[in-house]
Parts: sequence; structure tokens; C-alpha cells
Amino acid sequence: MISEKMSVMVKNSSITRAMFEEGKRLAAIYGKENVYDFSLGNPSVQPPVSVKEAVIDIVTNEETTFVHGYMNNSGYEDVRENIAVHLNKIHSTSFHKDNIIMTVGAAGGLNVILKTLLNPGDEVVVFAPFFGEYRNYADNYDGKLVVISPDKETFMPNLKELEEKLTGNTKAVIVNTPNNPTGVVYSEETIKELSKVLEKKQQEFGNPIYLISDEPYRELVYGDVFVPYLTKYYKNTIVGYSYSKSLSLPGERIGYLVIPKEAEDYEEIFAAASVATRILGFVNAPSLIQRVVARCLDSEVDISVYNENRELLYNSLKEYGYSCAKPEGAFYLFVKTLEEDDKAFCERAKKHNILLVPGVAFGCAGYCRIAYCVSKSTIEGALPGFKKLYQEYQEER
Amino acid sequence: MISEKMSVMVKNSSITRAMFEEGKRLAAIYGKENVYDFSLGNPSVQPPVSVKEAVIDIVTNEETTFVHGYMNNSGYEDVRENIAVHLNKIHSTSFHKDNIIMTVGAAGGLNVILKTLLNPGDEVVVFAPFFGEYRNYADNYDGKLVVISPDKETFMPNLKELEEKLTGNTKAVIVNTPNNPTGVVYSEETIKELSKVLEKKQQEFGNPIYLISDEPYRELVYGDVFVPYLTKYYKNTIVGYSYSKSLSLPGERIGYLVIPKEAEDYEEIFAAASVATRILGFVNAPSLIQRVVARCLDSEVDISVYNENRELLYNSLKEYGYSCAKPEGAFYLFVKTLEEDDKAFCERAKKHNILLVPGVAFGCAGYCRIAYCVSKSTIEGALPGFKKLYQEYQEER
Repeated sequence: MISEKMSVMVKNSSITRAMFEEGKRLAAIYGKENVYDFSLGNPSVQPPVSVKEAVIDIVTNEETTFVHGYMNNSGYEDVRENIAVHLNKIHSTSFHKDNIIMTVGAAGGLNVILKTLLNPGDEVVVFAPFFGEYRNYADNYDGKLVVISPDKETFMPNLKELEEKLTGNTKAVIVNTPNNPTGVVYSEETIKELSKVLEKKQQEFGNPIYLISDEPYRELVYGDVFVPYLTKYYKNTIVGYSYSKSLSLPGERIGYLVIPKEAEDYEEIFAAASVATRILGFVNAPSLIQRVVARCLDSEVDISVYNENRELLYNSLKEYGYSCAKPEGAFYLFVKTLEEDDKAFCERAKKHNILLVPGVAFGCAGYCRIAYCVSKSTIEGALPGFKKLYQEYQEER
Repeated sequence: MISEKMSVMVKNSSITRAMFEEGKRLAAIYGKENVYDFSLGNPSVQPPVSVKEAVIDIVTNEETTFVHGYMNNSGYEDVRENIAVHLNKIHSTSFHKDNIIMTVGAAGGLNVILKTLLNPGDEVVVFAPFFGEYRNYADNYDGKLVVISPDKETFMPNLKELEEKLTGNTKAVIVNTPNNPTGVVYSEETIKELSKVLEKKQQEFGNPIYLISDEPYRELVYGDVFVPYLTKYYKNTIVGYSYSKSLSLPGERIGYLVIPKEAEDYEEIFAAASVATRILGFVNAPSLIQRVVARCLDSEVDISVYNENRELLYNSLKEYGYSCAKPEGAFYLFVKTLEEDDKAFCERAKKHNILLVPGVAFGCAGYCRIAYCVSKSTIEGALPGFKKLYQEYQEER
């Protein structure tokens, strides 16, 4: 009796569920510590201690009906203003509270903005490999996903193909940098070129094309890598942010949308997004944690742990013979699978108790994603398996 | 550039927004304490102290990446099991964790279950007066709302009309008892008769009809009123619960769905609802507050405050000459307006700095809703205005 759409979704979700079940099954046989689960982007680094301090201080000293009560659907005004000021300080932008809508994580924010923008049949462009949920989010509002094929050399956006695939029906383009699943960060030059293409095309079609920047990994970059703030390059940019990774709070479902005043039809979009937040059943982002993140704007998690994992895993896999680009951000490695069929490869990795996600889940076959937001011991435990797996494939040649 | 659907929604939301703006404008002129805002269902009673204690204990003593991390999309298993056990204790039911999905409030839960069930064009039946958001929630999934006209004597569901309006396309019937906006509680006899109608009709059409029980006000009843647990009367019942009112946590967005094993296609529905939670962008109910409510299952807010408000307001309005049914639950009075045009009446109440919601917002013209979840001083301050308002109408006769 479930809806036809959901029947398809449940079927599509079965890979992830099967993996989860398989992980449990393997753990039961071999012990949890001997199963190496690289399938989930669940941060292993603890939230900064400021989070705990803020929680305790707020529930102890602030008025409880205020802390746990309803506020504007778009969020507490002081929280939104503090976030705007913080963004301005870091990015030299000029946002106010009326550019910020607090959301139930970035996933909630993306749904709110797509609900706000999409008429049935409107096109949403994504660059492969991409976070598979974008397809579902667009489908929630009967949007049509248009996929730009991957540049398997650099995993930078294929702007030539973008230019060809933008149409009068394109309502939005989603980018995700630092990227899940590749870990690449789009350079300033790439962003400038991307903006040029969008400017040209929206002029040609006479419709705004909104660039939706999905930014849960913004702060997770290694070394001196610069992550451009996209509203400064293209005025029809809408940012979807999440504290899931930057403060290790993925379960709390807290993030925000930035809708700049410069964006075409800003007022209409801002008003509609606030209403969409309510209508979709979010109502508002969770209240206590809104107040908590506003006090932790200068805090960050210790990403040196992820960096060590990255170095260890990347260097070891390269040494064994695997081929993959070194990620500059996020906590994923996107590795070429040792046979074309990435699902078959991931199946085979399971024999070494290693759980990976096949690239097809991101619209990019022939690769697999390794989420290295795990304990160092998980990586150390898995390395002999990765090595053997490579040797097995060599021996069969 | 916003979607056509959202353009309509934004227009429809303008009444509430206008009221909110009007409240701010009046407060600026007359002082906040001299504006009597009865328009919002925002609890005025503090959460029980156990909430604060649980928050502090959990962030102090539980593992932080667990407390703030991802879990199953349906929620922490121990939280779900504790809730099931609690329900069984109170209602003599036999639920397990696999009957419970934690949701982002009842609004999130209703969206999850409607996403799960509805194909475009499927009918969702509601009884007027009804919470206006039901229309939007059904529309999110292209469902068609079918409204049963109000019984203005008792505000009990009109079962004769229900029987006439159920069709082969009816996928769900939503009930809300204790009711927003009337405060009435459906008696056990009413529930039995309702169940009989549904049983008969689903047999006639050969399709299950799901009864969705929206229960944010379950614990808010006065005196010895019995609120039947609907899964015990009709097997295709799905419960949407919220802690917004029972623990005064509306901003936290925490509730759950109950999907009983006895419901037709239970397994399919449960699996699809878990996936819908993810796809709609909720991902999971906020994590810390999940763990908090699981520790506060035996706590309740002090509803004697609401009861005093109810007695004071009801008795005073009756004394002045107003006509309304005495509510048995929730924290609303649904009062006959002194002219047929309820919007005009509410406009006139504003002249006495009293903010009310017109009945048309609930599909029931000629009435208005007074939310008495306010401070006693707000009621005391407003009473002279209510009295004068009545006299004005009398003098014009």
C-alpha cells in the first residue's frame, strides 16, 4: 500500500541497508573490531568541548520556555545575526539575519530551497560523482536531475558539458566542494569559469539559474587549501551549510541556508523558504542546538585526526598499487576499483571484512568511496586486507 | 522565480504573518504587556526539571560522538524500545522498537507517513475544524484533502458524512483528539463507531484505509477524561506523537510515529517510512533530545496552569455572553464569533489589543480560536476587552 515513488526509493535504498546488515552479520561472526566499516560519513572526532559547555550553560541559565520553545520558522533572530556576522568576518561578505534561515541540517536546507524553487519538470544539474541523495531531493518536488559526466582525471566539474546541458528549464545547479565522494576542492579559477558559464546561460535564457552550494565539508580541508565562498563570485548563489562535520554534530540536524540580498527575487525566495520550512514539517531547526552552535562559531573539531588517517590510507593504498587522487578536503578517498564492476569489487572487499560504497551510488562506476572518518585502528586493521585484495587481482591477471 | 505551489502557500500564509506583524506593531505602540496574543500554540508552562537534568547528565556522562552522532534513520534503538515499553505500560499495547520511528515533531511524522502512503490524487479525509497544515502536508505529496463538515453542536466527527465521502481513493483519515482548535476529546463510543465505518468501507473497496491519529495533545486533558488509544480499536491506525506540548519542547522538534504490526502491509510501511525520513531531509530526529525524552517518559508538565486558564477564560466568556463548548483537552477555546464573518470579528478584537485566529483557518467559519497557553496575566488583562467587545456588538443590534 505504499506509494509508487516510495516503492522505488525503498528498492534503491536496499544497497545501503544490505551493507548495514552485512556489517552487523560480519561483526557477529568476526567481532566488531575485526570488521572495517568505511561506508558511513559519521564523524569519529569528538565535538569541541565548547559544545558541551554551551549546552550546560544554556539549559542552566537561559529561560527554558525560550530555549525549547517555538521561534520564527527561520530561526532565532540573534542566532541568525551572529552567524551572519561570523560569515562576514571570515569571508568579507555583508550578510544580515535576513539572509540566514536555520535548517534541519544541510539535507533539510536543500529540501527547503528545492521546494521553494522547483516546478514539476524543472531541471537540477549535478556533477558526477555526486551525493546520491540529490536525486531524491529533486524528485521530492518532481524536479528532473541532469547529470554532468565525471572528469575522471581531476574530478573537477566538466564545464564544457555543463554549458551544453543548461537549458531554459534549468532552475538550479548543485555543487559540493570540498566534495563527497572525491575530496577535491574546486579552485578559485574553476569557480570563476563556472560562474561565467552560468552568467552567460542565464542571460541567454532570460531566467535566473541558482547555484546551490552544499557545504557540509567547508572547514574540512588539509594544508593551505583555499575554499572560495561562492556568493562572492556568482550573485544567484544559495549556500546550504551544516554543522554535522565542522562540529561533529550530524545527529543533531543543524545547519542553515544563506540567501544573499543580491540573488534575483531574494525577498520572494526568503519568504517562501521560511514557509517551506514550516510546510515540509521541519517547522524550525531544533531550538537548543541553534543556541549552542551560535556560541561555538569559532570552535572547530580537531581535523588533524582526519589528516593522519588521510595520509596513512592514501600512502598505503598508493604503495600497494591502488590509484586515486589525493583528497584536499572532506574525509573520503575515491579509489579506482580493480575491476570495472565496482559493485563486484566491493563485494570482494567484504571477504576481507572491508565495507566500501560502490561508485555507482554516486553516479560514477569503476570507483569506490572509502570514508576515512574512522578510528586509526580501523585503518590499520584494514590495511593488510587492502593489500591482499590488490594481490588477488594481480594474480588473476 | 519561486514555484507556483509555493506562491500560493506564501499567499495563504500571509494571514498568520500579518497577525504576527500586527502583534509587533501593537506591542510597539501600547507596550508588550498590553497586547493579548492568543494566536499561537506555544506552551507557556516550563518543561519539567527532569528535562534539564537529563540534558546535563547525558552531555556530561555519555559518549559525545554517540550522543550527537548519526544513528538509524528511525532513531536510537534503545530510545525506541523504551518508548514502546512505556506505551505498553500505559495502554496495555504490545509494541516493540520496530513499531516506533522517531520523528522531527508530529509535523515531521505526518509528512513522513503521508510521503510513505500517498500517490498523486489519493484522498486524505479530515474533520472540520482541523489544523490547517494538514492541507499543506497532503499537498506536499499531491494528495487531495477531503473535508467533512463540522458538527457545530458537539464538534464530534460527523460519521454519517464520513461514510458518504469515503471512496476507493481514500488512503487515510486524520483525527486529532484532544482537538486543535476545539479542545474536544473523542469518546470511546465515537472511536468505536468511527472504526466500524472505516472497517466497513475498507472491506467494501478492498483497500486499507489508514487512520492517522495526530496526538500532540494526548496528555493535556482536564479531570478524568479518558482518551482512547486508537490502535486498540482499529488495526490500520498509525499514531503521530509529539513531545511539544507534553514536555513543553515545541522548538526541539521531537516526536515519533507508531506503526503497529497489525497494520496492513506493516513491514513495507515501516521500511518505507524510515527511508522517507531520510529522503525528505530530516535524516533522523535530533539526537540529544531523543535521548532526553527517553529519560523523561514519566515526566509531565504542570497542566494545572492551563486548567486554571481554561476555567477563568471559559467562565468569564460565558458570563459576558459568548457561546462556546467547554474544552476537555488541549489549550484552545473555539468560540462562536459575534458576527458571521469571523475574520471581521478578529479584526475588531484587535482594537482591544486581542489577537485571535479566525475559524476559517481551520475550515470552520463563524468561530475563532483562543489559545490559552499564555500567562494568567494575559488572560486577566484581556478580559475587559472581551467584555467590551461583546457589549459593542450588543449595542449595535
